[in-house]
Amino acid sequence: MNPRFELAHLAHAELLTPDMEGSLWFFTELLGMREVARQGDSVYLRCYEDPYHHSLKLTGSDAPGLGNLGWRATSADALDRRAAALDTAGLGRGWTRGDLGVGRTFAFESPDGHPMELVWDIEKYVAPPELRSPILTRRSKRPLQGLPPRRLDHVNLMASDVTAQKEVFEQTLGFGTRERVVDFSSGTEIGAWMSVNILGHEMAIMADSTGSRGRLHHLAFWYGVPQHNTDAAELCREYGVRIEAGPDVHGITQGAFLYVFEPGGNRIELFGNSGILELEPDFETVTWDLADFDTGIAIGGATLPAETYFVYGTPPVPGQEKLVATGGARS
Amino acid sequence: MNPRFELAHLAHAELLTPDMEGSLWFFTELLGMREVARQGDSVYLRCYEDPYHHSLKLTGSDAPGLGNLGWRATSADALDRRAAALDTAGLGRGWTRGDLGVGRTFAFESPDGHPMELVWDIEKYVAPPELRSPILTRRSKRPLQGLPPRRLDHVNLMASDVTAQKEVFEQTLGFGTRERVVDFSSGTEIGAWMSVNILGHEMAIMADSTGSRGRLHHLAFWYGVPQHNTDAAELCREYGVRIEAGPDVHGITQGAFLYVFEPGGNRIELFGNSGILELEPDFETVTWDLADFDTGIAIGGATLPAETYFVYGTPPVPGQEKLVATGGARS
Amino acid sequence: MNPRFELAHLAHAELLTPDMEGSLWFFTELLGMREVARQGDSVYLRCYEDPYHHSLKLTGSDAPGLGNLGWRATSADALDRRAAALDTAGLGRGWTRGDLGVGRTFAFESPDGHPMELVWDIEKYVAPPELRSPILTRRSKRPLQGLPPRRLDHVNLMASDVTAQKEVFEQTLGFGTRERVVDFSSGTEIGAWMSVNILGHEMAIMADSTGSRGRLHHLAFWYGVPQHNTDAAELCREYGVRIEAGPDVHGITQGAFLYVFEPGGNRIELFGNSGILELEPDFETVTWDLADFDTGIAIGGATLPAETYFVYGTPPVPGQEKLVATGGARS
Amino acid sequence: MNPRFELAHLAHAELLTPDMEGSLWFFTELLGMREVARQGDSVYLRCYEDPYHHSLKLTGSDAPGLGNLGWRATSADALDRRAAALDTAGLGRGWTRGDLGVGRTFAFESPDGHPMELVWDIEKYVAPPELRSPILTRRSKRPLQGLPPRRLDHVNLMASDVTAQKEVFEQTLGFGTRERVVDFSSGTEIGAWMSVNILGHEMAIMADSTGSRGRLHHLAFWYGVPQHNTDAAELCREYGVRIEAGPDVHGITQGAFLYVFEPGGNRIELFGNSGILELEPDFETVTWDLADFDTGIAIGGATLPAETYFVYGTPPVPGQEKLVATGGARS
Repeated sequence: MNPRFELAHLAHAELLTPDMEGSLWFFTELLGMREVARQGDSVYLRCYEDPYHHSLKLTGSDAPGLGNLGWRATSADALDRRAAALDTAGLGRGWTRGDLGVGRTFAFESPDGHPMELVWDIEKYVAPPELRSPILTRRSKRPLQGLPPRRLDHVNLMASDVTAQKEVFEQTLGFGTRERVVDFSSGTEIGAWMSVNILGHEMAIMADSTGSRGRLHHLAFWYGVPQHNTDAAELCREYGVRIEAGPDVHGITQGAFLYVFEPGGNRIELFGNSGILELEPDFETVTWDLADFDTGIAIGGATLPAETYFVYGTPPVPGQEKLVATGGARS
Repeated sequence: MNPRFELAHLAHAELLTPDMEGSLWFFTELLGMREVARQGDSVYLRCYEDPYHHSLKLTGSDAPGLGNLGWRATSADALDRRAAALDTAGLGRGWTRGDLGVGRTFAFESPDGHPMELVWDIEKYVAPPELRSPILTRRSKRPLQGLPPRRLDHVNLMASDVTAQKEVFEQTLGFGTRERVVDFSSGTEIGAWMSVNILGHEMAIMADSTGSRGRLHHLAFWYGVPQHNTDAAELCREYGVRIEAGPDVHGITQGAFLYVFEPGGNRIELFGNSGILELEPDFETVTWDLADFDTGIAIGGATLPAETYFVYGTPPVPGQEKLVATGGARS
Repeated sequence: MNPRFELAHLAHAELLTPDMEGSLWFFTELLGMREVARQGDSVYLRCYEDPYHHSLKLTGSDAPGLGNLGWRATSADALDRRAAALDTAGLGRGWTRGDLGVGRTFAFESPDGHPMELVWDIEKYVAPPELRSPILTRRSKRPLQGLPPRRLDHVNLMASDVTAQKEVFEQTLGFGTRERVVDFSSGTEIGAWMSVNILGHEMAIMADSTGSRGRLHHLAFWYGVPQHNTDAAELCREYGVRIEAGPDVHGITQGAFLYVFEPGGNRIELFGNSGILELEPDFETVTWDLADFDTGIAIGGATLPAETYFVYGTPPVPGQEKLVATGGARS
Repeated sequence: MNPRFELAHLAHAELLTPDMEGSLWFFTELLGMREVARQGDSVYLRCYEDPYHHSLKLTGSDAPGLGNLGWRATSADALDRRAAALDTAGLGRGWTRGDLGVGRTFAFESPDGHPMELVWDIEKYVAPPELRSPILTRRSKRPLQGLPPRRLDHVNLMASDVTAQKEVFEQTLGFGTRERVVDFSSGTEIGAWMSVNILGHEMAIMADSTGSRGRLHHLAFWYGVPQHNTDAAELCREYGVRIEAGPDVHGITQGAFLYVFEPGGNRIELFGNSGILELEPDFETVTWDLADFDTGIAIGGATLPAETYFVYGTPPVPGQEKLVATGGARS
């Protein structure tokens, strides 16, 4: 069956952190996400417009990286169909009993080894009375702490083989590839931006030039307001959070970006608009030539640092940790 | 068959205008939309990110109002299935030969008599070389004229019976109702906000207290940038375009709104953000109580003028024309 | 001597509040101002870019209102000259020993009875190490609490006789009148916007139609970023702070406004841009005709509620308290 | 006499251009400035809120560069006093008969040889009826063409000796130095930001590492709205105007910057806020250490390209022209 309408969106992510205190400070004090639960070495957090129990699970670990990614299906039947398709593709890792706020899931791995799961049963968040918003589509009041993003937005994964990774997600899970970057001199695909709905992307895949497998490039949270990226940069500058690039707007996805490194070492993107929304049901994939890529990277004058942006991912390869170390000025 | 994924989005609209010169000035000089064709009494216009040949057809007429609304299906088969369903519902008006840039369509009417059509075959816009943008997902360069919106966004229709109108669109065309307003004292539904994708709404229906049928409340164009609504208000103020309300942000849909009357008399909304995006596949419809409606109308302090907002639609009922007349200062 | 360059700016203000807990919540939790000291019934607060020890002194009282306004002279000599001029004008109330962070001041009253003072000796704020900003013109880091304004901006006073009040400030203290509103049918001046520097206004005077004397219309704090007024409106809406009008932009001063009532009952304006900056040394006062005043009030569609905006001031006249009462939802 | 309050502001500037057609396209089509006059090889332009006849004179020339800078005095007497002081300093070049819209001026040169003049008699701009704005402090309607800045803002000059240049402006013309950058390893001052009013700067001076004299770094125009810098970058990207850096916010002056090269080769800054306003009459000059300069350059992640920003000025030294050449895509 055509997998086109089988997945709904990215529902939650787990990040690993070797600096739980620092990561918690970043996500709760600076970004104003609310803690909803703790269990074992993990803390569960949510943005004020996230629909479910949590969108981010932080788990203590030796190194930063991606612990898990949860994609929600459009129905219980769609979940079963996609689980079967993943098994057929040899990527299925079996059913799980879920997690706090998450029911039964079907675990799988991307071709590059990124840990993921599909889910249908999930706990809708219901705010306690003191956190209820008079804006009824808002799951909880905007916090007065920090500069709070509204919800989890998308993920960017590094992969040893972009094309192989992309094709599995297209064919097995129904992702549409909106944009890609190709090195026309070699024909190699070095990036792909994909979505299961009208968002410009919910998952990007970029070539990992270190030859590593299964690494995270970044996880993104959504402001939807361009000015908030400027505000976030200001707070990061003042509180010692290292800014990698931005605020600016990518040509690819037209997304307003700000890249920073949370204290645990993971790259986080703050997303200040919705980017291009792809309403056409029969859109054609847009292809950027690597040789003509500057507008793709930024519409304004921003540059992406070659020493980090295209090589640093989490977990870092040996020696990369120092690339993103900061002196720290949080208080 | 479940109509859930059968429609893709609102593709084009036709507005009637008794002041073609004034309406053209508004849409092309002030809003910077580009003219793509003329035929008979009609002028075809597009925003710079609209995907197709045109998104707005302006047609000379005795009175302002809605000439047509075109919804694009998600596939040719989906179009056939929805045409059959509309015929079953008694709303079908038969196949047409289309229009400039629009192939064969299936014409139908809403229960309240609004003229609409479904379409699959449609002309994708390809910009001439001098209008091509280096931002590859952008169908043409942002114009240097006026304050250009990026694309057609949504429509708001007045109806004599909100519930009847809503249910047909849910059951026959697969719209999801995201939010509604109910007069709890009487149980009457007085507004519904509906979508076929993750947008907070692509069609709203509001009760027409004049008892008229088939009228247009407003057509909306998308900036996606909150500041642009402030800029648009400034230009309207300086160039004699009557502002009804805004800029502010509705609680309903969380949409950043500015309502103005184009010189032909149609209410136009400029939309300064994406509003809430509904990613949950199993969202529950949010219900606002009319008695507790102020946050629904505006998060800030804006008020919607009772003498126009809830009663004026196009075509106007006799006597309403003067409600939106302006002295005019365009130059 | 020509008083033209004798005053520098509005340095501090004292607000009286019958609800210290509520007022403190508003200024410190919602607006993120920092407490710097307490003494007697007063709490001293500052915005993160205020140059001195404090900009706002909150003092418990039976009714809301203005406790004091401190204007800083451009030099010690200028202070002496203006003190003498105020004595000559019969408005001087003698030298004081100052306050926390404030040296010797010369107390005076406006013709309408508003309590004010001139000051030269004042304590420059020096942040403790943990609050120092790497942005060296910034006196302290932007707080992570609430939505913090950057500094005290201006004051708006109600007066029984606008012209008399205005002329004293022009002639005795060197204020320039940038804009005024005149009821051309009667010749009565009903508003004046004045400044001692290039700001569009640091003090406005508006006619008090209740016939009261010496009341405060509002005190304003500066964001300088238009989006922050939208953000502030959202927070006020969610946390139960009553919004009177805005966000919108006044035609007068071109100031981006949001009016709210802090829990103590004082009207507070949040100011989202710098407004027009008057660089011309020989500017001519701009006069608005009351009959053509709508653009002066708002460039967008905002309206100022007649039942509060033009009649409510602090202290309120008997019966007005209920005009601004809120249910309260802060948490 | 203390020169402190003798100058009011930067009133006009003349830019030389070897590509008049390209420069005119940039300033009138892209930036929407209005042409007010032509004379000889010069075209006179104005922003819609500039107070005088013109703020920019474009003059055809073999090379780009600064033709003149006009500072307005605070009074006729102040002009005479400053002319005498400049003569004493050996910088006076005598009285002129002025220019279109400009009365008698006193010509002088900066110590580094930048051509300047002082003026009192100047023609206030009065818009023709069709360009009058209902916003009465606005000298003319906001144009519907391009993305129009509101007024001329400031100038940045390169100088062979920053300290010498700075001290003359402080002592002879009353400029205040708000911020400076010092290479603490050598004690050399490499930049100074100066103003005659509360603006964070109206003139900056930066060391010219090429050893040239009297060159222009950039001329800046004011939007006062942060989003407009993002919009301007987008237009420059689409229409082939080379972006050097930004949008971002400098730590120095807290100014929201976007640097581009107009087709004639001059660097132009678009200024998206008011920056820090220095209200303290006895402010202390803030000193940045060159070794700790990154926050001074940008609060966000922007970098200033070493191959242009610190070495390219106009007129360019031989070989620099190609640094800013663009393919050109305007249409």
